[in-house]
Amino acid sequence: MPDVKGAVLAVGSELLLGDVINSNAAYLGHQLAAAGVEVVASAAVGDDLERLVTALRHHLVEADVVVLSGGLGPTVDDLTRNAVAHAFDLPLDRVPALEDGLRAKFAAYGATMPEAILVQADVPRGAEVLDNPVGTAPGLWLAVGDRVVIALPGPPHELRAASETVWPRLSARTGRAVTTRQVLVSGLGESAVAELVEAAVALPDGVALSYLAGGAVVRVRFTTSRDPSLLEPLVQSADRVLGKHVWGHDRQTLDDIVHEALAAAGQTVAVAESLTGGLLAAALSRRPGSSATFRGSAVVYATDLKRTLAGVPAQVLAGHGAVSAQTAAALATGARERLGSDWGVAVTGVAGPTEQEGHPVGTVHLAVAGPDSAPVVRSLRLPGDRDHVRTLSVTAALDLLRRQLT
Amino acid sequence: MPDVKGAVLAVGSELLLGDVINSNAAYLGHQLAAAGVEVVASAAVGDDLERLVTALRHHLVEADVVVLSGGLGPTVDDLTRNAVAHAFDLPLDRVPALEDGLRAKFAAYGATMPEAILVQADVPRGAEVLDNPVGTAPGLWLAVGDRVVIALPGPPHELRAASETVWPRLSARTGRAVTTRQVLVSGLGESAVAELVEAAVALPDGVALSYLAGGAVVRVRFTTSRDPSLLEPLVQSADRVLGKHVWGHDRQTLDDIVHEALAAAGQTVAVAESLTGGLLAAALSRRPGSSATFRGSAVVYATDLKRTLAGVPAQVLAGHGAVSAQTAAALATGARERLGSDWGVAVTGVAGPTEQEGHPVGTVHLAVAGPDSAPVVRSLRLPGDRDHVRTLSVTAALDLLRRQLT
Repeated sequence: MPDVKGAVLAVGSELLLGDVINSNAAYLGHQLAAAGVEVVASAAVGDDLERLVTALRHHLVEADVVVLSGGLGPTVDDLTRNAVAHAFDLPLDRVPALEDGLRAKFAAYGATMPEAILVQADVPRGAEVLDNPVGTAPGLWLAVGDRVVIALPGPPHELRAASETVWPRLSARTGRAVTTRQVLVSGLGESAVAELVEAAVALPDGVALSYLAGGAVVRVRFTTSRDPSLLEPLVQSADRVLGKHVWGHDRQTLDDIVHEALAAAGQTVAVAESLTGGLLAAALSRRPGSSATFRGSAVVYATDLKRTLAGVPAQVLAGHGAVSAQTAAALATGARERLGSDWGVAVTGVAGPTEQEGHPVGTVHLAVAGPDSAPVVRSLRLPGDRDHVRTLSVTAALDLLRRQLT
Repeated sequence: MPDVKGAVLAVGSELLLGDVINSNAAYLGHQLAAAGVEVVASAAVGDDLERLVTALRHHLVEADVVVLSGGLGPTVDDLTRNAVAHAFDLPLDRVPALEDGLRAKFAAYGATMPEAILVQADVPRGAEVLDNPVGTAPGLWLAVGDRVVIALPGPPHELRAASETVWPRLSARTGRAVTTRQVLVSGLGESAVAELVEAAVALPDGVALSYLAGGAVVRVRFTTSRDPSLLEPLVQSADRVLGKHVWGHDRQTLDDIVHEALAAAGQTVAVAESLTGGLLAAALSRRPGSSATFRGSAVVYATDLKRTLAGVPAQVLAGHGAVSAQTAAALATGARERLGSDWGVAVTGVAGPTEQEGHPVGTVHLAVAGPDSAPVVRSLRLPGDRDHVRTLSVTAALDLLRRQLT
């Protein structure tokens, strides 16, 4: 079967102006790749009918499948329906069943339906409607010769819901898949990882090797559109040469790994955090079902709360300061005791933008207290601005916990 | 002066495959627009030399300024330097000063420099180097006739640091600015906002009106490249017709508004949160200097912690359950008392994916307790999946606090 190529077009001037981050492109790219579609282009297009029509036609030259997101709302700057109709000279038909559905949705909430909403019942002739159970704008699937144009609503949860049936249909069309395996590493830089991996593996024909670094994690990626079993020995070689720095594979996340290790041991974790201000707790509560292993966090932003809420002894705070290895250790122990968990994880430090108690921005102390021994402490000097320091601290704390658990 | 048009090209197959969300495009789009550059295109390009060269040449047809992000690292899939050189037939020169700088950066950390790093000292002939104080890959500024190609490193904090000098230079070239004013609204849907605004304002020629809805916030946007003073009366009309649902303007965030109101009153806030699992605390600690008004949070994910850490009376939990208006009120009061703040904000509910205590996913109870009266409670049924419910809950909680403070 020939390659099936795909393009993603995210619609909205707000994407060009940078008012919104284009997270839909990532979701759509991942779904297309998994369905065996080679994603060759991803672009954002403004709310301009002519540019939309041009972009749609232009991308259909190379791509067999074009997926649009956004521009299906009820306001005057929502132009995707019109653009699809114009690009292929189709009339827009008002579909009575969709109109009835819109009226019913508003009635169910006891709300008055603005008349403008009814444009969402307009469909380019010949397009199939993709049901949107969580919003008012349905998606569209339009066959154009042997090619396909798919239009999906822009709000991410609506896009996911309305596209559920799309991915199995595309997989059936491509009949093949691109396989990617990833080795997930922390504690080593990208260059060091690359030197180790390239000395250890010999790439067979048809396998690509790439690296992806960000947020204190390096991902080693092997990709092939040939036999997927080519990849397993490469992953094993990378695992061997990278050793304990490997924390997972493929689409695992550090919080997945931590929760699974805790669940396997029948144990729980709690947090006491300062500079991360709740982000570590948010990471540990991200996963559905995390309440089985995550108990909670004392977000002790104010110094006195480190004592009153998280149980850091006053003499530790007075003697070493809030930003210290000793306070991190006491916070980890306090988290275990005050929040009643097997493991306690603590983060304290300076996120910036200015230094604190004489410690420069990026100074971070992490600690993990467990059931069997004294707390393990790790002191770091992290690069970047406030957001970056906070994000890296969460990853480093999860990784320190992971190293104690596994 | 004629219009200056711009394009953003984000480099990396990981963007096409959806392994990374393209946040750089938003940053670059915003910076270009503010510098008076009309952003006409934004695309992601894979790690493929031919496609990169083609995309670069293609976008330079319409755009006067093309900004590339990413692909400046030291590994084999980092092709931006080569693509810029190929596209304009320039040799790559190894620059001794950059080489010395790279060696010095590694020496300062006491680390061994992998030889591969030295490709980051290669510069297409004629390009200016943009200093990157927080990483090893410098940026590039290349004049191509009367057009400009700018290449920036991909890690967001490096991109920001290396592009600091770029924006004032571009502003000087354009000599004009596009002005956007935004009215920020919560508590009303996009269609309802649009109906109210369009009945109340008459748009002058040369002013565009658009709406942007997401995360429980609707942004009403007025944009012009003519006289910026055209916009102020439109903003005032929108403010009047939308009334108390308007919480801010332009690039303000809800946490900004809340911190400013607290600071003006000399007051502080603390949180007790369950389904948001630390996200509300993270939002309240995002802003630099937030420690002046934000004290901390009791993230009471486990039900017993609602009693032991946040002081919810056992009879409230037993009588009404963890997911109830009564528990939310007691959590807000408990946050004030246990964390020693003037205001307490609480969130409890069901994030999903499954119902809890018989309450469906999306059931959320918010409460705000203040110094002067009984807690205010708001009970909601939010749409979407786990992530979406958690995110909307944070916005709704900040908005409820804002309505009590202002």
